[in-house]
Amino acid sequence: MAHERIRPWIHRTPVLTSLYFNTRFHAEIYFKAEHLQKTGAFKARGAMNAVMGLAAEAAKRGVVTHSSGNHAQALAWASRIHGVPCTVVMPSNAPDAKRAAVRDYGADIVTCEPTLTSREETVAEIVRQTGKHLIPPYNDERVIAGQGTAALELFEDVADLDVMLAPVGGGGLMSGTAVVARAIGGSAINVVGAEPELAAEARESLRTGIIQPPMPPVTIADGLRTSLGDKTFAHLQQHNVTIITAREESIREALILVYERLKCVVEPSATVTLGALLEQPDLIRGKRVGVILCGGNVDVRQMMK
Amino acid sequence: MAHERIRPWIHRTPVLTSLYFNTRFHAEIYFKAEHLQKTGAFKARGAMNAVMGLAAEAAKRGVVTHSSGNHAQALAWASRIHGVPCTVVMPSNAPDAKRAAVRDYGADIVTCEPTLTSREETVAEIVRQTGKHLIPPYNDERVIAGQGTAALELFEDVADLDVMLAPVGGGGLMSGTAVVARAIGGSAINVVGAEPELAAEARESLRTGIIQPPMPPVTIADGLRTSLGDKTFAHLQQHNVTIITAREESIREALILVYERLKCVVEPSATVTLGALLEQPDLIRGKRVGVILCGGNVDVRQMMK
Repeated sequence: MAHERIRPWIHRTPVLTSLYFNTRFHAEIYFKAEHLQKTGAFKARGAMNAVMGLAAEAAKRGVVTHSSGNHAQALAWASRIHGVPCTVVMPSNAPDAKRAAVRDYGADIVTCEPTLTSREETVAEIVRQTGKHLIPPYNDERVIAGQGTAALELFEDVADLDVMLAPVGGGGLMSGTAVVARAIGGSAINVVGAEPELAAEARESLRTGIIQPPMPPVTIADGLRTSLGDKTFAHLQQHNVTIITAREESIREALILVYERLKCVVEPSATVTLGALLEQPDLIRGKRVGVILCGGNVDVRQMMK
Repeated sequence: MAHERIRPWIHRTPVLTSLYFNTRFHAEIYFKAEHLQKTGAFKARGAMNAVMGLAAEAAKRGVVTHSSGNHAQALAWASRIHGVPCTVVMPSNAPDAKRAAVRDYGADIVTCEPTLTSREETVAEIVRQTGKHLIPPYNDERVIAGQGTAALELFEDVADLDVMLAPVGGGGLMSGTAVVARAIGGSAINVVGAEPELAAEARESLRTGIIQPPMPPVTIADGLRTSLGDKTFAHLQQHNVTIITAREESIREALILVYERLKCVVEPSATVTLGALLEQPDLIRGKRVGVILCGGNVDVRQMMK
């Protein structure tokens, strides 16, 4: 249903294959190219689904979120298309480029202190004063359903996948992917989430049964520095998601390989999956494997300096 | 005919479009993604066509070329597929990565001094001693015919192009593109070659009617530092190719834009076309435009340092 709803607005992104990777891993790997999605990341799917699910009255009052990343751009983009007023709360230390991208989509920006407390208080204040509707970046069933449409398309394009991999940050993409993978592949498919060794909150949350707070924000996979929410945690538990991790040097090596071999510009968060596979290639040997390349929003100017 | 011959071995590369570029230029721009070609560049087309055109006896003796760039890899690749012995003469200062790439395709490498004279003498010596067949990087009708198949596919995929752009180095790609564009589009189509302002040998050669020697090798578009050969010069004259140039900062800005907006990893030589258009956007305003993105072989490790 999410897919029917958002399909007219999103790209059906291509599925990429590479002789190099298939040979190296002795596997058939299918990369879902969400870095070519609208706004440069899968986040367009969840944001669009959430905005289109608003009742008329709520749509009129508008939406608000706090994010300095891809979700902010995605929500601003989806809101503009449907004429919904959008406010984004961004920390005062957010990069100018991200600020500009959100503003270019016509959203209002409210600046807050660079702390989680300040962000949440600022959003709560906006909700109280304006009646705007909060659309969180991941801990939201509408957002999760939207993110799951990437995996849905991949299953439509490639039959009989044995393994499905996605990165795990807040868990929105992973939750949506797991729901779809279990619905289509049942218990036979290995549903795997990858996260940086330096931001292994999901692994620790599943191991302890308690949602773990964010680890210090040091990994280069900056989109994955968040911890799970209660809804995404429940999905990961319920759908039996296995978590694997990647060291920083593996994420970086995988990033270089994707640039060199797939000739794709992706962000480090998108290569945590492949990075983890470099460390444990046996996981996919002889298998048909789906990998969601989640986004391509890197600071190219900085990278090429 | 070249296309029929090489089609089973090459990729039919996709044609990419971008709302960003179309809006910015008020044009419809179709990018032919030759960075996704086998060996990472259009050079695979010409090399394959030349190798497949060899008589049985010549194929048995093998081929030789001098190149430190994409042609060397392409010839090594094409030769391996058809079981043709291949020798590549490379200067002693060629980067290890390029050396390794050629060796990985199974070619023999002969090292020479890093001068044009030494290269040519070394090749001549090999031809004399072994009877190997020289396949030059661009000044060769078989190579030119192969390179033209990129434009041919673009015309098949996109009807009614008003302008066709390709970069000009030695002129192999430009010659093949011009032959095809005139055969299909007649005199109505504007056939445009782009080169760096710092390596404008083709412009000066056409202006003076005499092939100009290479300018100092300083442009970041390192694939375009060569001058025309007699055959490519004749094609450019005969097919009425207009030359436009790009300043270094325009090539660089175009490179960043292709990474940011198309999310494609291309080499600087591939964005000289777009760089020149940034300087003279009126050339394509309101037009349907084909642009050949020639290759994607950049040193990613170096870039990400």
